[in-house]
This record gives sequence, structure tokens and C-alpha cells, in this order.
Amino acid sequence: MRKLSTTSGPLRRVKKNVFDRIQILQWLPRYTKLDFISDFVAGLTVGIMMIPQSIAYAGLASLPAQYGLYTAFIGSYTYVFFGSIKQVSIGPTSLLSMLSFTYLEGYSVEYVIFLTFLTGCVELTMGILNLGFLVDFISPPVTSGFTSAISIIIIGSQIKSLFGLKIAAHSFFELIVSVSQNITNIKISDTTVGLSSMLFLFVFKSLTKIKVKSKITKKTLWLLSISRNALIVLITSSIAYYYCQKDGHAPFVLSGKIPSGLPHFSLPKFSTIHNNETMHFTDMLHTLGSGILVVPVCAILTNVAIAKSFSSETIVDASQEMVTLGLCNLFGSCVQAMPSSGAFSRSAVINASGVRTPLQGIYSGTVIILALSFLTPYFFFIPKATLAAVLISAVLSMIEYEILPVLWRTNKFDFFLAVVTCSVGVLYGADLGIIIGSVLNLLILLKEWSRPNISITLSTWGRRSNTYLLIKPEFGLCYPARDLLTEKIMEAHKQHPTLPMVLDCSGILKIDYSVAEALSNLLESYNKENDTLILINLNTRLLGTLEKLMNKEKMGYCQSNSMLSDNIFSTKNHEETKLPLLGA
Amino acid sequence: MRKLSTTSGPLRRVKKNVFDRIQILQWLPRYTKLDFISDFVAGLTVGIMMIPQSIAYAGLASLPAQYGLYTAFIGSYTYVFFGSIKQVSIGPTSLLSMLSFTYLEGYSVEYVIFLTFLTGCVELTMGILNLGFLVDFISPPVTSGFTSAISIIIIGSQIKSLFGLKIAAHSFFELIVSVSQNITNIKISDTTVGLSSMLFLFVFKSLTKIKVKSKITKKTLWLLSISRNALIVLITSSIAYYYCQKDGHAPFVLSGKIPSGLPHFSLPKFSTIHNNETMHFTDMLHTLGSGILVVPVCAILTNVAIAKSFSSETIVDASQEMVTLGLCNLFGSCVQAMPSSGAFSRSAVINASGVRTPLQGIYSGTVIILALSFLTPYFFFIPKATLAAVLISAVLSMIEYEILPVLWRTNKFDFFLAVVTCSVGVLYGADLGIIIGSVLNLLILLKEWSRPNISITLSTWGRRSNTYLLIKPEFGLCYPARDLLTEKIMEAHKQHPTLPMVLDCSGILKIDYSVAEALSNLLESYNKENDTLILINLNTRLLGTLEKLMNKEKMGYCQSNSMLSDNIFSTKNHEETKLPLLGA
Repeated sequence: MRKLSTTSGPLRRVKKNVFDRIQILQWLPRYTKLDFISDFVAGLTVGIMMIPQSIAYAGLASLPAQYGLYTAFIGSYTYVFFGSIKQVSIGPTSLLSMLSFTYLEGYSVEYVIFLTFLTGCVELTMGILNLGFLVDFISPPVTSGFTSAISIIIIGSQIKSLFGLKIAAHSFFELIVSVSQNITNIKISDTTVGLSSMLFLFVFKSLTKIKVKSKITKKTLWLLSISRNALIVLITSSIAYYYCQKDGHAPFVLSGKIPSGLPHFSLPKFSTIHNNETMHFTDMLHTLGSGILVVPVCAILTNVAIAKSFSSETIVDASQEMVTLGLCNLFGSCVQAMPSSGAFSRSAVINASGVRTPLQGIYSGTVIILALSFLTPYFFFIPKATLAAVLISAVLSMIEYEILPVLWRTNKFDFFLAVVTCSVGVLYGADLGIIIGSVLNLLILLKEWSRPNISITLSTWGRRSNTYLLIKPEFGLCYPARDLLTEKIMEAHKQHPTLPMVLDCSGILKIDYSVAEALSNLLESYNKENDTLILINLNTRLLGTLEKLMNKEKMGYCQSNSMLSDNIFSTKNHEETKLPLLGA
Repeated sequence: MRKLSTTSGPLRRVKKNVFDRIQILQWLPRYTKLDFISDFVAGLTVGIMMIPQSIAYAGLASLPAQYGLYTAFIGSYTYVFFGSIKQVSIGPTSLLSMLSFTYLEGYSVEYVIFLTFLTGCVELTMGILNLGFLVDFISPPVTSGFTSAISIIIIGSQIKSLFGLKIAAHSFFELIVSVSQNITNIKISDTTVGLSSMLFLFVFKSLTKIKVKSKITKKTLWLLSISRNALIVLITSSIAYYYCQKDGHAPFVLSGKIPSGLPHFSLPKFSTIHNNETMHFTDMLHTLGSGILVVPVCAILTNVAIAKSFSSETIVDASQEMVTLGLCNLFGSCVQAMPSSGAFSRSAVINASGVRTPLQGIYSGTVIILALSFLTPYFFFIPKATLAAVLISAVLSMIEYEILPVLWRTNKFDFFLAVVTCSVGVLYGADLGIIIGSVLNLLILLKEWSRPNISITLSTWGRRSNTYLLIKPEFGLCYPARDLLTEKIMEAHKQHPTLPMVLDCSGILKIDYSVAEALSNLLESYNKENDTLILINLNTRLLGTLEKLMNKEKMGYCQSNSMLSDNIFSTKNHEETKLPLLGA
């Protein structure tokens, strides 16, 4: 009987943990009719917005359009069950598409799906290991430099489609050179479509700024504004359709044929053929390289950032978002999806639509499924220049140039971090940018953390003759500071070789082997004959660890003031009140 | 005039810094005759010991023997001028040879020299940037796992020479399989030389343990013990020489021809030919990969570890050692040396010889130069099995199995770290082992550091009705904890929405943009109409940064207790003494 109860304890805890992760169980029982109406409107709106966006983001990763749509519906559906932030809509994003392109340019779609699978695995593992705190180490200046870099790279990648150019470039620098060399090859028809699409998007985006009194006019303007992407795609596709019916072909580059219907549900492929060679699991891992970590971390970062911007009331659980994103991508890899996360553009629309629960994902996902089933034949006619315009307009506002003067005024190092992250990102890849930015930021902290302040004061015990050195590290001492502690004590002993020393251990943060070993070495070397080094305020864990490491006779320590006096001084006449710093 | 004095200020400081780095200027003026005699004996002893060691370590990196000797003399000479630890002897080491082999197996010697050059550059840069503190983040359990892994790998790599086997293996696992498959191909002659050399080394190493009364006998035994490597090389080479004179060849594998004389002084080559292709600077960088960082960090680690073991009196300046090692390797790359650092085996001998200053390097370096000039023809006859025996005996004591039970008893996580570092090191390379070990160790710390304790207490100001919430983060709050602070304040406000809140800023460690932004957001959202969030104990830097970020009217703060009362409460009847926590 007893054995049963001990095993059911952990089991019950695991059950509770799993239950906590399935967020839908927490809000669905309280679902109302009003919730349904609000979620339905929000879901429908974002679903329509997602269609051109998904096609464009698939193109950004140089994949056929259907993969973007697969990503959109599976993400929307999965998030309903595990998501904790109602404003989030999981699907393809410009950032992740761009990263997929960076890591897998020239590789087949099997590699992208494999990346989706690994992204899911890494996110799920990080969530289960509760590594949410890691996200906190990417500071706002670094995040800002990173998103700016991504935006600049996306604009660069779309320039050629906007002007109908056919150029290949492997770096931003090469791109600038190629574009300026090919400036005479610009196609008038594509450029016209591209630039007028951009103008259209700019004007329609500004519609909400018009001040009108009528509530209906206001709502109409808002609706026109948020459906601007769908509208311009519809308009330019119709023009393309007209030309195709008349001349047999359009005067500008079109998206091309997209297969109709839903994908089959199957596990991702763990080996594939690339350049006529069979690539196995490890070969594919090697190709992905740092992407295995960078893609999931970027996905998590985006979701946490969205959560912080839109849900100021609730506290974001980064580990929960990791688990949810992990499941979205694992399921995604079974329906041939690209890596996915929330997107700022979609969240803004969902929020403005008055969403009430994550159930909106059901409605937006269904819109995508309907599009995949019935609309794909018409996607053929979408001009590439229009998709480029949609992308460029979306990311233009993501270049955070306005933060730079603020950073310069408040903290020069943060300014430097943002500029380095962005420059390295644009020139050598956004992933390298965020890694260098975060490492530089952390280095400064590590230096301060590894050097806690250790105060050494001459203290007296009651009468003046009973003098000793009190060594007290400020809170936070742990293994990187062990040598510093040793040095400080050696220094103190050199200056006052006759005085006994008292080490206040209350500031020692973590009692690991490294710290315990340093302390036992100190005690061994100073307490050879008589105690000259006494530890005070040491907790039972530290005491236990020390006892395992060393001879108990050389271990000078005491738990209370009165014991301290017995240890150091033979005379017992002392006033305890004069030593407020000591005591267990 | 004024302009001159402002530029000479920094110049003088730079001069002083450079002067501080040239350590010889600090001890040479006080050099005595006794110093000379002690250093001469120590230098001669370690010089003779270094000859077979350098040849063996060159072989470990699969380089011809002369490169080991080049490394030994340039290191010894350079350290005299810049070194701060008298027991250190710079030259080839088993660890760095092994790492060179790992990164550059199958590449030409130009690559190894290029690695020496880059190692020097990285070390010098780290020293100038004062990155010595980084070494503290590699804890003893990780170091122990790392050296054990290296030792096991070295033993594995020497097994084939010891038994005269001809096998090629790319991983430890492959090696074990190959050896067991080829067990029937073992050559009796090589095995006899190898095993009897090992027995000889073991017996001679134990000579110092014999208890004798006579001082001269004791000294003779000690001398025999430390020159055991040179002796066994001499004995087995003589046997080989005898066979060669008699039969024209030896029955076991010999070292082969070594060119005589000193190397030319020239800059390392920044492009080379590999597999009939010209490799440029960037191609070579790409080949070296993570070795560019791992090799210098391992070299620095070794030197700091030696310093800590042998010079318990002085405080080690890791940054000084970085600069010195950097110069040793930069000069080394000009005389075709391999990457170098101090070695535990040599330091033990130098220390036992009673060294007094780093000037011993002059004498040991000269021994190597004499060997290069006159002894190289005889190096031909050294049996490879003897060199393998020398290496295996040297590293056998470096496998730190005895630390494992101690770690298990004191701290399970440290035990886990040592085991992971060692296992990953043996199976996938020592560099990956130390990286994974250190990152895991740091992760635990980062989690604790990013979550400082934030206490929230109900406090009163004089009379009971004047209640407020005092929010006080423990010392050490910086950017990773900004969200935690926001969450805690939001939570506190939710629980007591009517109470004003007071945030004690004295625990904020670093005032960067991230922390300032979080504070200004909090102030903006809570101080819309009346102050409900007041900052106290904020220093002038934090105040200045906040003023640049936000509207001053919404910024509730105060520098003294009396101001606090004006801010929160209309009534002025209060007793200041009852609030010991507050105050500027």
C-alpha cells in the first residue's frame, strides 16, 4: 500500500503539470455567446489577411505558396488548445521565412520541413526544462537591432521582384552591387505594378487616421485598412487574369501554379536526396547548423514580445509559450509546414478586432482550409511584384530607427549593442547579429557578477583588545568568485598577520563543490595549529558539504555569537550588542 | 600648453601599462648570484627533460620532431621577459598538441603555424581587453573532466605506436574497434620496447619514494627520477643504433630523419596549397573553426591552473598571462612553432629544482638550441614505441578519477558536470566537452542571477492609516530581471489596488536602457493621475537616465524620507524613526 502511494505522488504531479499546459481546459468551460461572436469576427478578419501573407512568406523562403498556407492552418488550430495569449495567431512569419531562406537556400523543401520538426523538438525541450528565463537575457537594444536587421534584409530580398529584375546575390553587399549594375534592366510593367501596390497599401494603411464622426464610416475605413493586402492582391490578380484571357499571358511575372487541396498527414522525412547524393539524418543536421537553435529561439522571442506588447494585464509564462510553439511546429512538420510563430502584424489586427479567447484560431484556420480547397486555381494570377509590395510595406515599420537617439542619450553601450547587432545582422546574417549582441551584453554582466564586493573591516568583540578581521562578501558569491575570495583573505592576512579572521558566509549564493573546496583549502592552510579563520552564518547545507571535504578538527566555524567568542578569545567579558553584524 | 598636458596624461598611463606588462623590469634589478645558481640548475634540468618531451609532443600533433623543439626554445626565451610565474616553462604540451591534431589532422604544417599565430592574436586581444575574469567561469569539476578526457584521448592515440600497429581511426570508438580487430597484428619487437620503457619509467618515477638518510643518495635518486624520460630515450636509441650498425635497420619503428639547425625567422604564411588548391586566409580560418577560440582558452587555462597550484603566495593576474602567452605564440609563429603554453609536468620539475626567477627559461632554451644544433642526427634512432611510453606515463596521472567520489558526496550536479565533460570530450572531442560543461554550469547560475529575490512588505509611515507597499529587490538586479520586477509590481498592485507603492532602487546593479525603460513604463502606467509608484534611493545616474526617457511630471521619486511623506500622504504627522529601511 505504501509503495503505491509514493508512486502516485509524482504521477499526480505530472498529471497536474500536463493539465496546466492544456490551456483550453481553463477557459473553455466559461465560454459565452459573446465570446463566440467576438472570436468569430476576429478569426474571419485575420484569416482573410493571412492568405496573401502566407503566400508571400512562402515565397520569401523560396518555397511554393501552398507551404505557407499549410503552415497557417496547422498553427491556428494547434494554438487553440495550448496557447495562453488570445492575441497570438501562429503561422508563417517574415522573420522565420527569412531565416529558413538563410540556412536552406538551394535545398529542397524536405529540409525546411525537417527544420520545422527540429524547431518543434528544441522548443518543446526548452519548455519542459523550464528554460523560459533565457529569453530575458536578450535585452531590448539587441532585439531592436535584430528586428531592424531582419527588416532590411527582407526589403533587400524583395527589391528584385518589385522591379522585375533577375539577379542572384548571397550577401547584402552583393545585392546592392547587383541592383545598381542592373538598374537599366528594370521592367516597366513589374515596376508599375509593384510601386502602385505600395502606394495603394500606404494610402489604405492611413485610412484609419482620417477623423470621421460616423461610427459606421469609421468601421468601414478600419475594415478597408486591415483588408488592404487582400484587396490589392484581388485587384492586381484581376488585372493579370484579364491580360491572360486577352493575350494568353500577363505583362508581369505571376506566382504560377499552386496545387489544390490539403496536405497528407505524415511524419517528416529524415533522409533525402540532395545533388544526387542521399543525405542522412546527421548530414541534414550538419546542413542546418546553428539554425537548429537560432530558429526556435527567434520564434520564442517573437511570441514573448507579442505577449508583452498586447496583454499588459497578464504575466507571460515563457516556458508555456515554448511548449505550445513546440507542439505547433511538431504537428506542422507532419503536414509539410514551415517553421512558425506568432506575427506582430496579425496580432495587431486580432487585438483591434476585439478578440476574447484563443478560439479565434478555429475560424481563421478554417478560412485558410477553404482557400486551399477552392481558391488555389486563382492564386496563379497573383503578380510577384504585388507580393513584394505587401512584404515591404509590412516590414518598413519594423525598422526601429527611432530608438537610436533614445539609446544614445540614455546609455552609450546599449546604443553600440543595437548598432552592432543590426550591422552584423545585415552584413553577415541576422542570427550571427543576435548571437554577438547577446554575448557582448552578457559579458559585461558576467564581469560584474563574477566580482562581488567583498568588504574587510576591523571589528572588535567587546573590549578593544579583542580585535578581528570581518570578511563579508556581498550577496551573490558563487563559483566564479572563489579565487577572488581566496585572494582577498590572503591579502587581509598579509596586512594583519596577527589578527584572527571571521568570514561571514551569509552572502554565498550556491554551495557547490568549487566554493566548498576553496573554503576548505583556506581553512586547511590557516587553521594548522590554532584557529585563525572562523566561518560564521553558514547554513546546514554548507556545513554538511564542508564536513564531507575536510578534517573536522581544522574546521573553525560557529553558529552563534557566544560560540564565536569561545573560539577566538579566551576572555569571556564581552558585550554582544556591539556586534550587530554577527550571529547565526 | 593645456592641450599638451591632456594628451600626455593618457600617454603616460599607456606607458605605465606597457611597463607593468614587461615583468622582467620588476625583478631583474634585484637579481643576485644565488638566484643565478638556482635558476641555472633548474633551467638545465628542465631543458634536458624537454628534449624527448618536445619530440613526443610534435609526434602527437603528427608533425616532424623539429617543430616541437622550435616551440620549446622560443617559448622559454619569450617567457623570461613577460612571464610572472617563475615555475612556468612555455613549450609544447600534450593538450595543445592533441587539439592541433584534432583540428588539423591531414593538413600541412603551415596550418599549424597559422593556428599558432591566431592563438597568439586571440590571447593578446583577450589580455588587452582584460578578459581574465572569463577563466573563473570554468569551474574545477569541468576542468577535471576536461583534463581526464584529454589524457584518455592521448593514451588512445599512442596505443598503436606502443604495439607497432598501423591503424587509422577518427574517433575514440573507432579506435577501440580497430585495436581489438588488429590485436593479432601486434609487433613483438615494438611491444617489447614500448612496455619495457613504460616499466622503466614507472620504476624510476617511484625512486623518490624510497626512504634514504644520506642527502647525496636522496639527491641522486631525485635526479635519476626526473631525467627518466631522457634516460630511457638514450638507452633505447643506443639499442636501435647498435642494430642499425649491425643489420642496417632496427627491428622496431624509429623516429626518422630530423633536419638540423635553427629555423629562419619569418612571418607565418597566410595562404597555402592543400589538395592542389590554393587556400587563402578565409579558407584557412574556416578550416580551423572553433579551434581559434578553444586552443587559446585551453592554453590560458593551463597557465592559470599551474600558477594556482605552484605559487600559492602570489595572486595570479590572468590578463597578464594572456598577454604573455599571446606574445609567446606570436613570436612562435615566426619560427614555425606549434601552439604553446606551460605544462604541469615541467612546472613540477622546475619547482622541485628550487627555481627563483623566470630567468631559468634562458638556460632551458639554450639547452634546446644546442640540441637542435648538434644532436639532431642522433634523434633518428629514437624508437616510436619509447616516445609513446613517455607520453602515456606522463598523462596517466592526469586522469582524475579520485575526484569523482568526492564530487558525488558534495554535489551531485558537479559530479554530473565532470562526467558529462569527460564523456563528451572522449567521444566527440575535448573542445566540445569543455564547451558543453561550462555552458551547463553557467546556465544554472544565469537562472539564479536573473531571478533576484524581490521582497514586498506592507509598511506604515508613522500612523497606522498611512500604509504603503514597499518593494525592495535584493542587490544585483539588472536587465534580465526587468520583467520579473514589472510582474512583481503588477501583482502587488492587483492585490492591494488602493495602496501607494514605494520601490527601493538601491539594489539595482546596472542602470542601462533596458532597466530604465522598464521603470519608466511602470511610472507612466501607474502615475497617470496621482502618484501611486514612488522610487526611493535612486542614485543620480538612474535619475539622469530616467529624466531622458520620460515626462518629468509622471516621475514620482524622492531622495529623502521627508520628501516621501509629502509625496504620498497629505498629513505631515509621522515618526521618521519607524521606517529604518527608507532614506537616501
